[in-house]
Amino acid sequence: MIPTAAELTATAERIKDYIHRTPVLTCSALDDISGAQLFFKCENFQKMGAFKMRGALNCMLQLSNEERARGVVTHSSGNFAQAVALGAKMLGIKAWIVMPGNAPAVKKRAVLGCGAEVIDCEPTLAARESTAAEVEQREGATFLHAYDSYRVIAGQATAAMELLEDHPDLEVLFAPIGGGGLSAGTCLAGHYFGNGVKTYGGEPAGADDAYLSLQKGEIIPQTSPDTIADGLRTSLGKAGFSVLSQHLEEVITVSEEEIIEAMRLIWERMKIIVEPSSAVPFAALLKENERFIGQKAGIIISGGNVDLGQLPF
Amino acid sequence: MIPTAAELTATAERIKDYIHRTPVLTCSALDDISGAQLFFKCENFQKMGAFKMRGALNCMLQLSNEERARGVVTHSSGNFAQAVALGAKMLGIKAWIVMPGNAPAVKKRAVLGCGAEVIDCEPTLAARESTAAEVEQREGATFLHAYDSYRVIAGQATAAMELLEDHPDLEVLFAPIGGGGLSAGTCLAGHYFGNGVKTYGGEPAGADDAYLSLQKGEIIPQTSPDTIADGLRTSLGKAGFSVLSQHLEEVITVSEEEIIEAMRLIWERMKIIVEPSSAVPFAALLKENERFIGQKAGIIISGGNVDLGQLPF
Repeated sequence: MIPTAAELTATAERIKDYIHRTPVLTCSALDDISGAQLFFKCENFQKMGAFKMRGALNCMLQLSNEERARGVVTHSSGNFAQAVALGAKMLGIKAWIVMPGNAPAVKKRAVLGCGAEVIDCEPTLAARESTAAEVEQREGATFLHAYDSYRVIAGQATAAMELLEDHPDLEVLFAPIGGGGLSAGTCLAGHYFGNGVKTYGGEPAGADDAYLSLQKGEIIPQTSPDTIADGLRTSLGKAGFSVLSQHLEEVITVSEEEIIEAMRLIWERMKIIVEPSSAVPFAALLKENERFIGQKAGIIISGGNVDLGQLPF
Repeated sequence: MIPTAAELTATAERIKDYIHRTPVLTCSALDDISGAQLFFKCENFQKMGAFKMRGALNCMLQLSNEERARGVVTHSSGNFAQAVALGAKMLGIKAWIVMPGNAPAVKKRAVLGCGAEVIDCEPTLAARESTAAEVEQREGATFLHAYDSYRVIAGQATAAMELLEDHPDLEVLFAPIGGGGLSAGTCLAGHYFGNGVKTYGGEPAGADDAYLSLQKGEIIPQTSPDTIADGLRTSLGKAGFSVLSQHLEEVITVSEEEIIEAMRLIWERMKIIVEPSSAVPFAALLKENERFIGQKAGIIISGGNVDLGQLPF
């Protein structure tokens, strides 16, 4: 069931001692460029560098003592792997992280550094799922899905809840759409706690399954994503689809050039490091900026985990 | 004369409506690595991306109406050029900026974007000084020195004053040493407003004129600086030398590898963009970290203006 307002409030209370309340930054240079009044919720400053910490903790903190004793398992090549590993370390839970063999070495090291066990597998979704299922059965560990879960969505919603607490008069919210965890959470936060705020999703044109799915009214899986925004290559999940169908104002798709240009503006003008996926909602606002002139816009900066040796500049 | 406590307080009051009160960031990952408790004063988030705004405004705000009407002139290839240009724009003052012909095009564009007049010259100190003196005489403009001025030092001191206001219990302060404006200001702020705080200077081994000058007790000009920290290649000025001689605890010099490693740590762990010069004080603390274990250390991050196409990673 889609989380209620009370469930979101309980979630924020549950996780608050385990996460950072991240700052909201403004930048007059980017206000001038966009014509809107921008408020950036900086989840790149979150623990392990991304919002994923929120959803992972909301799941783990609701495990029973027996479940905690048996541990958790997930499959991820990205930020969710690190979020589960770090969250598990904080709570004293054993974690198995299934990672495709081609995952960046730096990500594996970060997961290992938290004391989690890394299990290599072939770089296909089928291999990831079957390997995780094996661990689930063998160890009795609880499987945590990176986004297709209402508990994860409730956790990710807390970023926009904090943003709206700080700035209750926001008129529009922008979030990136990947698997749907963050975008759905942002929609729900806006719906329950905003003051008539409308939520927009930014999506790479090279991975526009959410755009197509919402247009058709049914999930159309992402088959061959082609985008630098590595966090947004995944297919929209069922839970996210159900929330976005009801509460998202619109998906705005952006080109690779628009993503890189928005990323460069954030780096050069705001002096903060954001990963390509994080630049997508700002790119979406810039693309359609005529519609948002003079409006107060909240933008979720999802994370800052980027390989400095592989920059698009 | 070296500014008094009352003069620093008056300076902070004078410029406060024209600058950002920049945030102080902490980072548990860097605390773990250093063994100290670190408080980063983020002047990379200052207007035009560096602390130079403070000193430039303190000078311009003390000009008489006649002086304002005749304008200001400076020579700089870096952040002070932008600071004077932007400050002059804010105050409605005409500004001439003498820039060496080899200054980065992006810096020239930024200065021109503020409405200042750029005057090209040969890339030597002699050419810069004579070109600026020409403008001074021809236009009656007031010459502003980038660092060798007690008004500039008083302006730069306000960064550490704000830091100490936020965290009065700091035990050590670290600032980079270039021309001496920021490092001298930091010393004075610590001396007048700290609670027994000691100020350390970080300097590139490839531009260690302050280290040598303080050791010898007289200014030894920098002749052939060789460092990535472009803001610190200049020679220590007389005003800075007189303050550092009295109030600086010690200069710690660092290698190019140590600067780049410290810069990478700040980018990767704190997710903020800092220029190489900004990484020097943190590199100095890391190099001698055994001496600062468990101490509360304030670190001045001087700026974030870096060419994304020319990164050392």
